[in-house]
Amino acid sequence: MTPYSQLTLQQRQEEYASLQKQFSQYQAKGLKLNMARGKPGTEQLLLSAPMLSLLGIDDYEADGIDARNYGELTGMPCAKKLFAELLGTKPEEILVGGNASLSLMYDLIAKAYTHGLLHSPRPWAKEECVKFLCPSPGYDRHFKISESFGMELITIAMTENGPDMAAIEEAVKDPTVKGMWCVPKYSNPDGIIYSEETIDRIANLKPAAPDFAIMWDNAYCVHEVYGEFRPFRDILTLCREAGSPDMVYEFASTSKITFPGAGVAVMAASVENQKYITSLLAYQTISYDKMNQLRHVRFLKDKETTLQLMQKHAQILRPRFSAVLDALDQNIAPLNIAQWTKPMGGYFVSFNAMPGTAKRALSLCKEAGVVMTGAGATFPYGKDPQDSNIRIAPSLPPVEELEQAMEIFCICVRMAALEKLGLS
Amino acid sequence: MTPYSQLTLQQRQEEYASLQKQFSQYQAKGLKLNMARGKPGTEQLLLSAPMLSLLGIDDYEADGIDARNYGELTGMPCAKKLFAELLGTKPEEILVGGNASLSLMYDLIAKAYTHGLLHSPRPWAKEECVKFLCPSPGYDRHFKISESFGMELITIAMTENGPDMAAIEEAVKDPTVKGMWCVPKYSNPDGIIYSEETIDRIANLKPAAPDFAIMWDNAYCVHEVYGEFRPFRDILTLCREAGSPDMVYEFASTSKITFPGAGVAVMAASVENQKYITSLLAYQTISYDKMNQLRHVRFLKDKETTLQLMQKHAQILRPRFSAVLDALDQNIAPLNIAQWTKPMGGYFVSFNAMPGTAKRALSLCKEAGVVMTGAGATFPYGKDPQDSNIRIAPSLPPVEELEQAMEIFCICVRMAALEKLGLS
Repeated sequence: MTPYSQLTLQQRQEEYASLQKQFSQYQAKGLKLNMARGKPGTEQLLLSAPMLSLLGIDDYEADGIDARNYGELTGMPCAKKLFAELLGTKPEEILVGGNASLSLMYDLIAKAYTHGLLHSPRPWAKEECVKFLCPSPGYDRHFKISESFGMELITIAMTENGPDMAAIEEAVKDPTVKGMWCVPKYSNPDGIIYSEETIDRIANLKPAAPDFAIMWDNAYCVHEVYGEFRPFRDILTLCREAGSPDMVYEFASTSKITFPGAGVAVMAASVENQKYITSLLAYQTISYDKMNQLRHVRFLKDKETTLQLMQKHAQILRPRFSAVLDALDQNIAPLNIAQWTKPMGGYFVSFNAMPGTAKRALSLCKEAGVVMTGAGATFPYGKDPQDSNIRIAPSLPPVEELEQAMEIFCICVRMAALEKLGLS
Repeated sequence: MTPYSQLTLQQRQEEYASLQKQFSQYQAKGLKLNMARGKPGTEQLLLSAPMLSLLGIDDYEADGIDARNYGELTGMPCAKKLFAELLGTKPEEILVGGNASLSLMYDLIAKAYTHGLLHSPRPWAKEECVKFLCPSPGYDRHFKISESFGMELITIAMTENGPDMAAIEEAVKDPTVKGMWCVPKYSNPDGIIYSEETIDRIANLKPAAPDFAIMWDNAYCVHEVYGEFRPFRDILTLCREAGSPDMVYEFASTSKITFPGAGVAVMAASVENQKYITSLLAYQTISYDKMNQLRHVRFLKDKETTLQLMQKHAQILRPRFSAVLDALDQNIAPLNIAQWTKPMGGYFVSFNAMPGTAKRALSLCKEAGVVMTGAGATFPYGKDPQDSNIRIAPSLPPVEELEQAMEIFCICVRMAALEKLGLS
């Protein structure tokens, strides 16, 4: 295989014709393959099946609290203890919520708009302009929350060490910049682990906005795919030590530990923040589902038991990641038309196609029955200025389907590149 | 027992001294009795224990949907069907949420503020003034939601047929009046069932505000305490027939059917409303806990099975309501110092003490170890202009404790009345 840049026009035409033939054959099969979302597959879901029958007539209580009834707005103490251990925070810094960390994030932003955060001079709805920093490529649902509230989204480049800190340090001098989105471990989609220096610089930010909010989405805190659990520093402690204890809100959930739709989500924040947020939360609910919290505590037990479960997930995920990476290594690498990450954990492979070809490649994929995350989704407003980044989510399909989907994907990426290089 | 108004000063002094003696005896016991909230008791919680072990390795799916995984933002179709049957609406008008209807109500109001409702000219946060109608006595948590968003709360009197409709019809001419709170069946706290005429007049309201929102909290839709299920008209149909299909949002939950903290909540609204709200909800969450929805469907099955369960609840609640009503009949009725409701369902007895004595009576109760809903809680801003209404919640304590608590309550109500009538 020759790098595409070295092909003559005729060679490109021949190559394209050959790919088109393969493409048509796949198209004729009427496949329906999905690599769109970081959705665990059936094998993974089975790992937590025993959790479902743990509670019953004799088990509904912990810490003297009847989990079935109303009350305990901030969550079951035993659940706080478990999550504090997983995140390396203190139990009193934990709020245990419902089934979705996304809701906890949304609700925090919504409260910032309607009531303001702890140090807000006024509710954000009363501000002329609210800007938010979006390290990109990033998680589309984060950006969509910001967008839905009418924020101005500011793209920050991602480096191999995390977001471009020089750009962030400059941006936070603007008092209308109210916060930033972060996925610090196995970032979505790049799979990057923020470096020690990056994390230190984030904790030591001195933003002009007194209510600047670091939205620290530690979605993949224990989600290694290759290797053992990698310890990670506690951002709450770092911010406290840097003199800004209330600047950060950390989020996590068991969506990719137990059940995506029936897990437990948490928000970790300073005790002062928790006090303030709980005072607002008391209007919104009497309590989250404590039975599901208790169910999780009974099943996950502690960090050690949880990490054992995560290794079982990793066993299931590894062949899927390998299928993606092997396909790219074999079919794309020699052509020198794209780069991609080889993450050690998380749920994604971030693929950068030849600039200007991502949309076209995914449109071809769709025609051949392969659904991917939309091109541009990983950037603010859904617009990738390079039209290059594609998020590959290998977790859901069985390995055989994944291999097939990746074959199609590679064909489409190559066709789009050849079209870009010119066929006439 | 002589009506207090007919007692001489000396008789009042003697009566007070006698009550004070009993009060001190109770005080010495150091009791801790709670009639504060409509919280089901342990016997009731046991009724739903079998629900906990219904799901497992072989049961996690319905309608071809894996309830464990992400997806189905608006809820499991089988759960929509169940709740549509219970409420008399159509399944496509149902959104099945998390464990708390209060959150669904709060979230709707929050979205009205940040994004606006379907027919809002602008988000409510951009309005100079937002007023909300509060039939009172009413549910404190409703009023608190409104208050927390800075609304101006307008008290509407309750009659035995529901809220004073003439006052409402007049109030809605003001375009800044954006909605009203309703508990149409077994109202909290009066236990009133809105009359046919009241409901018709509500459905036929022509408010000046195009986005006027009837918050129809049907919390006690199947919660008979005495007698069989009383059918109730579907407010969605009535509003549609009156030409205002999008004016109403109906809420209900299984908090007092299965588990208060681990139930399932629903919002029923027109298809157009659902479409609009779902478009906003998509930013907030990927899906609610569908496993808990499925668990409920397996357990409650259909309306008939649900009503059978509600009759078991009623069996447990009846002696508690009787304990309250008997105590009042025996110890208060002859004195002619108070009125109260004798509800056929719901969770409360609404007690109107001699005007100007509710706070004092509850303060005495507290001293004797009996916790009640705070005086004034049933009115906007927590201020009962008459200082008269007290909400009695009989469900939680065992009958013996309840009898004791009611003895103390009656003593305190009588002492407060005598103090008001004058002791010197």
